[in-house]
Amino acid sequence: MPVREKKLHVVTGAAGFIGSQLVDRLLNAGYCVFGVDNFTRGTMENLQEASRNANFAFLELDISDSTAFVTALQDDGGRIDVIWHLAANSDISAGGADPAIDLRDTFMTTYSVALACRKFGVRKVAFSSTSAVYGDHGSVALHEDIGPLFPISNYGAMKLASEACLTALSEAALDHLWLFRFPNVVGGRATHGVIYDFLDKLEKTPYELQVLGNGRQCKPYLYIDDLLDAMLLIVDKACERINCFNIGPEDEGVLVRDIAEIVVDKAYRNARITYGAEDRGWVGDVPRFRYAVDKVRALGWVPLCETSREAVEKAVDAQVSDRFKKTA
Amino acid sequence: MPVREKKLHVVTGAAGFIGSQLVDRLLNAGYCVFGVDNFTRGTMENLQEASRNANFAFLELDISDSTAFVTALQDDGGRIDVIWHLAANSDISAGGADPAIDLRDTFMTTYSVALACRKFGVRKVAFSSTSAVYGDHGSVALHEDIGPLFPISNYGAMKLASEACLTALSEAALDHLWLFRFPNVVGGRATHGVIYDFLDKLEKTPYELQVLGNGRQCKPYLYIDDLLDAMLLIVDKACERINCFNIGPEDEGVLVRDIAEIVVDKAYRNARITYGAEDRGWVGDVPRFRYAVDKVRALGWVPLCETSREAVEKAVDAQVSDRFKKTA
Repeated sequence: MPVREKKLHVVTGAAGFIGSQLVDRLLNAGYCVFGVDNFTRGTMENLQEASRNANFAFLELDISDSTAFVTALQDDGGRIDVIWHLAANSDISAGGADPAIDLRDTFMTTYSVALACRKFGVRKVAFSSTSAVYGDHGSVALHEDIGPLFPISNYGAMKLASEACLTALSEAALDHLWLFRFPNVVGGRATHGVIYDFLDKLEKTPYELQVLGNGRQCKPYLYIDDLLDAMLLIVDKACERINCFNIGPEDEGVLVRDIAEIVVDKAYRNARITYGAEDRGWVGDVPRFRYAVDKVRALGWVPLCETSREAVEKAVDAQVSDRFKKTA
Repeated sequence: MPVREKKLHVVTGAAGFIGSQLVDRLLNAGYCVFGVDNFTRGTMENLQEASRNANFAFLELDISDSTAFVTALQDDGGRIDVIWHLAANSDISAGGADPAIDLRDTFMTTYSVALACRKFGVRKVAFSSTSAVYGDHGSVALHEDIGPLFPISNYGAMKLASEACLTALSEAALDHLWLFRFPNVVGGRATHGVIYDFLDKLEKTPYELQVLGNGRQCKPYLYIDDLLDAMLLIVDKACERINCFNIGPEDEGVLVRDIAEIVVDKAYRNARITYGAEDRGWVGDVPRFRYAVDKVRALGWVPLCETSREAVEKAVDAQVSDRFKKTA
């Protein structure tokens, strides 16, 4: 490993949408980073900037294989400061059709992280959890302590299972565990999500955009840069043993039909938008939720994009630009 | 399978402490029962009565192997009415030392149950969860909707993971899911637990009983017959899609030192009791908790043993009698 003899940050899912931008941030802050990714959705392209940094090392690895993960960390296990565990299946509907996907990519990867912490005495873990752990609470604002937690998707279930695996680990073997409950995150380098799907569809049929569901689903969206600011702030400031934070905008979100219109308006002005009849896009999709973010706000976090709509607009610009670069 | 052509109740962990007594109850009520157990802790002895019943079939099977489980159910999958999923690791401290135990015996068995439900269209699941999903909330009464859920043992973590796996399944494919959050359950046929451990120790050293911890841990205990009454009542009366119930006594419990004294008083009158210094018996043991059971009470459940102490006394009698029969 080419990095210097100093404390190491391990990032799983390092080549993904969020992981790769976290890697860039950590490198810019002067840390040594060891990234792993199995390229299910991540790409080496996302790590172009990082790869030029002498403090960065990368290994292609499926960490749901815990033996392989522990072996990969063997030489540097003793100097790991934090494991940022971001590897996961991010395709909620795929995991609904085949539960093995979330089991392997979301839960077993976490189990491997827990084993590695025990093996190497790693005392800090930062984990990308999700609003989906809450299940469907209707219009009640979701604060971090709400119950019961009955996730309605395999995605949410395996994220909650992962949280539980890590809280049990923290009791025995961690100084700090940070659980970030992500909302829908948007931005450049996205490998999935509603904007990504809309742009994919429009590439195939530039004159028509078919939206799953009636488009009246309303969800909070956060811009990637604001998410990363929050994550880094939380790890810096929150020093309980277990630190669980919702991260998201303060509004109730933006309608799927507004997102469709923004995408069409910015990139495919002649496309006609059509909608389905259903209230939900797929089984396990929570149609509407409201996110309480007072806790992260109280730490001093102020997002640059104040509204979900702003975040979506900025993300559409970034993703259109990503696609333009690829085809150029 | 020798059972008649009628609806089938599948019981996992059927040869265990609780499973075997549930099997007896279901058979006595006239149901056909198919039991599976891998004999980690269960014994064929527990199924002596059941084995004489023509409505009972049994297979030795480790259901953490989902393929084996699905294959075993193949011929009768279509007529399964309810899966009662009780198979799990019940040794909390063993799972603390080796997380693979709870992963395999508690979580992967649940994953197999979920797969079997999908495969055969089973619409009802009853699951033995635990108070350990709540983690440590200090002296706050634990009602079913309390949050956050940060289990502090791998046992509690893998039970919460199992609940999540089943709630996600229920969204897609169940009519009814019953989650029983068990307290400490005591009674005859026990394969583990504090009374069992004390009797084991006293068999080896009849003049001394060494208690882990300072004996000041206080926990609610429920007698097995009262637990089974509650489970059967809940499945009969609670008809939401997800039905989650704490089951336990209304008192704050009984001290470990009281249990030690009851055991010594009833079975080893000359033994001296010694205590450790620690507040907790082991990492992941919740030292003190208070259980809210209004919800199951409101259904009409009235336990025969009104206090934890009564439950413990009755259980000590039953276990001493079990041991006497074995050595006789």
